[in-house]
Amino acid sequence: MTDNAILVLTTGGTIDKNYFDALSEYQIADSGIPALLEEGRVALPFRVVELMRKDSLELTDADRAAIAAAAAVAPETRIVVTHGTDTMAQTARVLAASVPGKTIVLTGALTPARFAETDARFNLGMAFAAAQTAAPGAWIAMSGEIFDGCNVRKDRDAGRFVAA
Amino acid sequence: MTDNAILVLTTGGTIDKNYFDALSEYQIADSGIPALLEEGRVALPFRVVELMRKDSLELTDADRAAIAAAAAVAPETRIVVTHGTDTMAQTARVLAASVPGKTIVLTGALTPARFAETDARFNLGMAFAAAQTAAPGAWIAMSGEIFDGCNVRKDRDAGRFVAA
Amino acid sequence: MTDNAILVLTTGGTIDKNYFDALSEYQIADSGIPALLEEGRVALPFRVVELMRKDSLELTDADRAAIAAAAAVAPETRIVVTHGTDTMAQTARVLAASVPGKTIVLTGALTPARFAETDARFNLGMAFAAAQTAAPGAWIAMSGEIFDGCNVRKDRDAGRFVAA
Amino acid sequence: MTDNAILVLTTGGTIDKNYFDALSEYQIADSGIPALLEEGRVALPFRVVELMRKDSLELTDADRAAIAAAAAVAPETRIVVTHGTDTMAQTARVLAASVPGKTIVLTGALTPARFAETDARFNLGMAFAAAQTAAPGAWIAMSGEIFDGCNVRKDRDAGRFVAA
Repeated sequence: MTDNAILVLTTGGTIDKNYFDALSEYQIADSGIPALLEEGRVALPFRVVELMRKDSLELTDADRAAIAAAAAVAPETRIVVTHGTDTMAQTARVLAASVPGKTIVLTGALTPARFAETDARFNLGMAFAAAQTAAPGAWIAMSGEIFDGCNVRKDRDAGRFVAA
Repeated sequence: MTDNAILVLTTGGTIDKNYFDALSEYQIADSGIPALLEEGRVALPFRVVELMRKDSLELTDADRAAIAAAAAVAPETRIVVTHGTDTMAQTARVLAASVPGKTIVLTGALTPARFAETDARFNLGMAFAAAQTAAPGAWIAMSGEIFDGCNVRKDRDAGRFVAA
Repeated sequence: MTDNAILVLTTGGTIDKNYFDALSEYQIADSGIPALLEEGRVALPFRVVELMRKDSLELTDADRAAIAAAAAVAPETRIVVTHGTDTMAQTARVLAASVPGKTIVLTGALTPARFAETDARFNLGMAFAAAQTAAPGAWIAMSGEIFDGCNVRKDRDAGRFVAA
Repeated sequence: MTDNAILVLTTGGTIDKNYFDALSEYQIADSGIPALLEEGRVALPFRVVELMRKDSLELTDADRAAIAAAAAVAPETRIVVTHGTDTMAQTARVLAASVPGKTIVLTGALTPARFAETDARFNLGMAFAAAQTAAPGAWIAMSGEIFDGCNVRKDRDAGRFVAA
C-alpha cells in the first residue's frame, strides 16, 4: 500500500510470557515478536522497539504516557503495539487522545506465543494488516475483530474482547 | 466494526497441504482453516465454505469463475479466500473484475499450516483484518503486506509477493 | 517385546503446567500425557491414571507413599511415572525401596508439554522405551539418559540430571 | 548408565522430509535430528552422522551395506539409525546379521519432524533410551514399542509396526 516501514512497540503481556523452570514460574521474557514476524515471512520493512516488559495489570499512567510518547515521536505513521490484554483498552484510549494522525493498532494474546496452540500469530497478523488499511486512530485487534480503540473492552469471563 | 459475518472460501493451495505416509507424498487435505480460526480465538461470526482442493497451478478459468460466482452470490460483503500462492494474483484480477462492492482478501501460505513453523496463521490473521478494514475491491495479504489485487505478483525466486 | 500393557501414572510437574489467562498465572492442568501418547502413535496397549496434580516441590511423604502404593498394586509390571523434576530423584528412591519386581521409569520435562519447543515428547518416549527394556528397578529418564533411580540428582544450575 | 557417546546415523526417510514451495513438493532435507536432540535437552554425549538422504523405498543393497559398515566401524557400541519406515525392517535384518556386539535401534516417523503434530520426537526418545538399555542386537522403536529387529514388519494399512 505504501512504502513506509511499520513500527512495532512491545510492552510485554501474556504474548511474551515464558516459563522458567529454575523459578518454577512464568515471566515476561525478551520479546518473541521479531521471531513471529520472521515466521510470518514479513518482507515489508519494519522496526521493533521493546519499551518495557510488563503484565498490563502493572502498567502505570507514566508507562502509558511513555508508550504514547514513543508512538508520537516515531517517524512511522503506522504502528503496532503488543500489550497485555487486561488493560489494553485503557492504553488505546490514551493513544487515541494523545497521538493524532497515526494508525495505531494494539494487540496481544490470551495464550503465550511460545505455546504450540496460541492466538499470538493470528493476532499479530491482524494488527500488521490493520496498521496498513485502517484510518488514523487507535484500534484493537483481538478475538478476530478490529475494534475502535475507544469503544472496546475485555470481557474476562468470556475470554474475548467486545464492543464496550 | 460491523456485525456482518465474514465468509471464508477455501480453494486449496500449500496452506492446506498435508503429508500422507501411506502414499509417500503430499496432498491437499480437508481444510485446516476452521481449526486455525479457532486457535486464533476468533469470536466474530464467520462461515467457512470449501470450494475445491487444488494446487493453484492446476486452477482453470472455470475454477476461477466458480470462485467469483461464490463470492458474488454470498450475502457477505467481506470475504477471505485461501488459495495457492502461485496463481493467486491471477484469481485476484478475476475477482476485481467480476465481484464489485465487496472487500475480498486472498491469502495463503508458503509453508503448510500443519508445519510447526509456518506463515499460515499470520497470513490468515492479516486477511481477516483486511476484510474488515480495507475498501471494497480485491486484495492480497502475503509477505506481511496488503497489496492491491490488481498490482501484485509472486516473485518465486525471492519467495515473496511484490508490487507488480 | 511382551504383550503386557504399560501403566502411566501422572503426578503433575512442569510437563503438565498450563497458562491460565483468567488467573494471569500457570497451574497444573488436566494431564496432557494421553494426547502426547496419541501424537506418538503409540499402538502398544497402555493405561493412564492421574494420581495428583502437584508441583514436585509440594509433594509430601504421604504423596510419595501413594505413588508407590499405586505402582505396587497395579497388575502391570512396566510403569512410567510423570513427575516434576525438582524432587524426582527422591520419589525414585522411595519406589526402588518399596516396589520390587517392576520396571518403573520416572520422567518429566523442563518445559511444559504445551509449549512449541519442549523436551516433553522426547522424554516420554525415552521412558516408554526404558519401561520395556530396562531391568526391574526404578529409573529416571531425563536429559537424554537413563539413570539408575538410586544414583541420580537434578543439577538445577546446569538444568540437567547427572549421576549423583 | 555408561559414559560412551551414542552414535546417530541418519539415512533420510519421512522423519526428515520438508516441503519446498518452489518445487511444490516434499523432499528429504538436511537432517533435523540434531535440532530434535537439542530440543530434547539431551546432555549425554552423542555424534550425528548423515549417511544419505533417501526415501527407504529407494534404498539399495549397497546402501544397506554402507549403513552396516558405518555401524560396524564406529567406536560406539550404542547406535541409533533414523530411517524411512517402509523398509526399516529389512535394514534391521541386515544390521542384525552383519554388526555383532552392538545395540542398534532403528527409528523414524510416520509424519515429518517439521510438522506441528508428529511422532518424530517421541520415537527418537524411544530409540535413544533403547540404545542405552537394550541388549546387543538390532531393534526397531516405532508405534510405542521396542521390537526385535528380526521379528517385526510395517503394517501399511494399519499405519503401525507389528511383530512379524
